[in-house]
Amino acid sequence: MKYNVTITIALKEGMLNPEARAIQHALANLGFPTESLSTARLFKITLDATDAAAARETAGQMCERLLANPVIHNYTIEVE
Amino acid sequence: MKYNVTITIALKEGMLNPEARAIQHALANLGFPTESLSTARLFKITLDATDAAAARETAGQMCERLLANPVIHNYTIEVE
Repeated sequence: MKYNVTITIALKEGMLNPEARAIQHALANLGFPTESLSTARLFKITLDATDAAAARETAGQMCERLLANPVIHNYTIEVE
Repeated sequence: MKYNVTITIALKEGMLNPEARAIQHALANLGFPTESLSTARLFKITLDATDAAAARETAGQMCERLLANPVIHNYTIEVE
């Protein structure tokens, strides 16, 4: 069966995110002050799996093996 | 009042996404075939606004002025 999996990958709490700081600074310069700003990457994947649990397991392996760096990233997986 | 705004920015339907194709190819090589894969960027912003509608309006301006390229990107805004 086909499942739509949404993977969100973000830096772990406490990791420096210079890109986010640069964007926050640029927004402030444009007149949009923000209290905090964080960035993340989103992957929407359609895959074949026997059930939702298997789809989630496969997505987790994708994160561990390729999409995320488990040392610096957290990831969340949603299966529909 | 403070609002948490989540902005998702993705390429418009039909735009080529070579990054997504490369990731899909790499996943297939690792033994994870996928039917489709798309990428998006997520920004989580905390900002001050008078109400939720104002927060959404500000986030929209941020997208138009800096975060997104309206020619090639779609964006969605969620306000909490």
